[in-house]
Amino acid sequence: MLRMAEAFASKVLSNIFSRSTFAWVLGVTLLVPLSTVGEEPAVDASDSLQQTVDRLQKLALEGSGALELVRSLTTEVGPRLAGSPGDKAAVAWAEAKLNHLGFAYVRKEAVQVPHWRRIREEGEILTPFPQTVVVAALGGSVATPPQGIQAEVVKVASLEALEELDAKQVAGKIVFFDGGMMPRAQDGSGYRIAVAPRGMGAARAAPKGALAVLIRSAGTSNNRFAHTGGMRYPEGVKRIPAASLSNPDADLLSDQLSREVPVRFRLTLETEELPEETSYNVIGEIRGREKPSEIVLLGAHLDSWDLGTGAIDDGSGCAIVMEAARLIGQLPQAPRRTVRVVLFANEEFGLSGARAYAAAHEAEMELHKGGAEADFGAGRVWNFRAGVEPNRLEDAKALARYLEPLGIKFGGLEAFGGADLSPLGEFRVPRFDLTQDGTTYFDYHHTDNDTFDKIVPADLAQNVAAYATWAYLMAEMEMDLGRGPEPLPRRR
Amino acid sequence: MLRMAEAFASKVLSNIFSRSTFAWVLGVTLLVPLSTVGEEPAVDASDSLQQTVDRLQKLALEGSGALELVRSLTTEVGPRLAGSPGDKAAVAWAEAKLNHLGFAYVRKEAVQVPHWRRIREEGEILTPFPQTVVVAALGGSVATPPQGIQAEVVKVASLEALEELDAKQVAGKIVFFDGGMMPRAQDGSGYRIAVAPRGMGAARAAPKGALAVLIRSAGTSNNRFAHTGGMRYPEGVKRIPAASLSNPDADLLSDQLSREVPVRFRLTLETEELPEETSYNVIGEIRGREKPSEIVLLGAHLDSWDLGTGAIDDGSGCAIVMEAARLIGQLPQAPRRTVRVVLFANEEFGLSGARAYAAAHEAEMELHKGGAEADFGAGRVWNFRAGVEPNRLEDAKALARYLEPLGIKFGGLEAFGGADLSPLGEFRVPRFDLTQDGTTYFDYHHTDNDTFDKIVPADLAQNVAAYATWAYLMAEMEMDLGRGPEPLPRRR
Repeated sequence: MLRMAEAFASKVLSNIFSRSTFAWVLGVTLLVPLSTVGEEPAVDASDSLQQTVDRLQKLALEGSGALELVRSLTTEVGPRLAGSPGDKAAVAWAEAKLNHLGFAYVRKEAVQVPHWRRIREEGEILTPFPQTVVVAALGGSVATPPQGIQAEVVKVASLEALEELDAKQVAGKIVFFDGGMMPRAQDGSGYRIAVAPRGMGAARAAPKGALAVLIRSAGTSNNRFAHTGGMRYPEGVKRIPAASLSNPDADLLSDQLSREVPVRFRLTLETEELPEETSYNVIGEIRGREKPSEIVLLGAHLDSWDLGTGAIDDGSGCAIVMEAARLIGQLPQAPRRTVRVVLFANEEFGLSGARAYAAAHEAEMELHKGGAEADFGAGRVWNFRAGVEPNRLEDAKALARYLEPLGIKFGGLEAFGGADLSPLGEFRVPRFDLTQDGTTYFDYHHTDNDTFDKIVPADLAQNVAAYATWAYLMAEMEMDLGRGPEPLPRRR
Repeated sequence: MLRMAEAFASKVLSNIFSRSTFAWVLGVTLLVPLSTVGEEPAVDASDSLQQTVDRLQKLALEGSGALELVRSLTTEVGPRLAGSPGDKAAVAWAEAKLNHLGFAYVRKEAVQVPHWRRIREEGEILTPFPQTVVVAALGGSVATPPQGIQAEVVKVASLEALEELDAKQVAGKIVFFDGGMMPRAQDGSGYRIAVAPRGMGAARAAPKGALAVLIRSAGTSNNRFAHTGGMRYPEGVKRIPAASLSNPDADLLSDQLSREVPVRFRLTLETEELPEETSYNVIGEIRGREKPSEIVLLGAHLDSWDLGTGAIDDGSGCAIVMEAARLIGQLPQAPRRTVRVVLFANEEFGLSGARAYAAAHEAEMELHKGGAEADFGAGRVWNFRAGVEPNRLEDAKALARYLEPLGIKFGGLEAFGGADLSPLGEFRVPRFDLTQDGTTYFDYHHTDNDTFDKIVPADLAQNVAAYATWAYLMAEMEMDLGRGPEPLPRRR
């Protein structure tokens, strides 16, 4: 209890003494009630940080506000790929909902987004054993001719394995990347590698003369759903169609290929690239009582892929941060700083919402005291990481202790912060991970099967408690946690 | 050990003594090696029933013959709805495979089957919140007009609830049966009730003026697959289209209906009723060494619904009985009686294969000493029931003891025997249940998701051991178990 107060006191005293030793001594010896620490006023006369956190956690764990928000979004909007009619409906939903929930400064900020759509997709093994299979066009894939592309299939395990093939082994064929993603992992590890052929398979296969690419779904379920997701055509490379196969269908294709007779496949994709659309980041705030210009950012993304109803990706994230901020807004007294909810446009298809936010708010980046995004489903938060400078480790740990009753451990300073917060790293906005349990996330992610019923209500509520706790502390504590680490050289 | 021998001795002696008490006394006192029981010769000079059963069980549990058969059927044939090209391919596959495996008297027996096919199916909630949903035409459903049927949805829980509505509440609408099937159960209970609207929903709704029916899938999974299956149009009733919704989509529709504003839906089904086709029951035998005209029947059905590859329904059943019989055929000496494998045509869409078999073999029904069908997936066998007369209870229990090492309990005399054996009941052919664990069966049953990967190899092998044990004992033991019970008056 009151560990945060100790840390705050430590912070103050560290201006006088060497922090590195003193903070530790203080941490184990100073157990002073919050109200006696002059530098850290209580939230109100009869309350303390810990009491307020307890209240927030209780309200969150007992409540179903987030669940009803996801239900509302998935039922009343459903799929909402950037640029689509669903995207527009989602923006309207979000603006209305934030207003209805009592957020301040509810506004939309324009974002240019691509507009691609899927019309029809068919896959068929022609020989040696004809069977139709479940395919999904990858996001951004060009169409095939209306009658499809018929060709022999050549299987490779990875992008690297493709590089080892001669062009004559690939030319005129459909390249099948069979790497896949099994097994499941709490941290979703495996996805980054599995997803490489989704993004780059077509770009790598086209120069060798491939006619199309198929990939085994980057998903951990053996349910018969194909996993979509963004792919890219680099400048100057021929654009060939790309689709994913469900895991059972990848098994089937692989089994037919194992017979060592040529396997011919017909892929038919009808897709359409339309002019860019204007979408919006939708923003609402719980205004701070003392330092309203200082911002604690709670993010999630409003867009989804077009196949499911976007319940876990990222309806749950939207609901978690909206409900967490709403609960903070219901406290007897607002926290010192502003809690800003940002529902980003177009995370899925190029992060243009994230970039637009960073550009539009560049002038106030110094005022962003921290950010966290919920974008890994609705599994329980189990890990907390703080993207602060190493000399703030003890402060980060102090904050982490408030999360312990929720079953959350402190995981160090190497935080990711979520894809939509990545542009904020260059401005050294401290980013925080409230890492969700992703064990089953890639069972559903980017498939038809991402629907409301996949959410476990108690787990979603625990997320609300975690995000509310973090955001409240970040907004209420007198000190801030400094800036984020120096950005690494950009990847890509 | 050797309990069967005790039972056989008991049987012989019961001609002299009162069985009811003597059998019990014998069962706990007589532990004589089989070879000393004069009435029960060993399988060969160095073997005994128990040793042979042990060998069969060991071979079955260590083997992967059944797994490779399901892999072959699902990879090389796949969906095989009665009358379809897949059905013809399956018949050719079965005939070739039985020959290849060394079965005797491999033959095809003609069966007339319906030929219905699914071409296109689309479901869309139009108002208040437009969303596309996952639907599957029920087997046999007529088509809608090409532009679909658009109407308001009226929801009912069951056929009985529909009866309580006035025609004016139903006329011009789409009736949505929302009963469903959750939760899972080992014995699949719940299916019979859940499936009633699938079979009869259209027939009951049409007279009240309904334009179409939707049913919540009769399945236990919240994966986004719609469950198909047969439905019927009674004579004289208007034929209206019928489709199922996946469970998540039924949730979605139900949620929209809960808002108490009219929900309009567009159902578009393109289906086709084609002329009847000739299909075949495919049969192979392990011929008996002493009484080859006496038959122990191992059944499964070769056809499947058209959505998945028919792995658990009923590729696994075909593989179990083929492999069980094959193992018996590999013994040093064939059993006394013939083990006949019957792969029935068209179980799914009217049982015409079962009826054709009973009709074609009516003259030898007395020679059918017992039958068992594997048609409940690939889960472990946990229960054994014997459809014999009550005075053979002890003999049935004696047989059951050979199954105990496989984790199978004796479950009494009320056996079902499988749908394809139902016509044999009228001829008092004893039918036996080797009840498979159906806990997850209705997760996959009749959906796209019934694919090879759903089979657990060790569980499939345990099935082979169970069916091989039962069939071997039925074929080898000198006595038979008499006739089945008097048939009940026919249902329907």
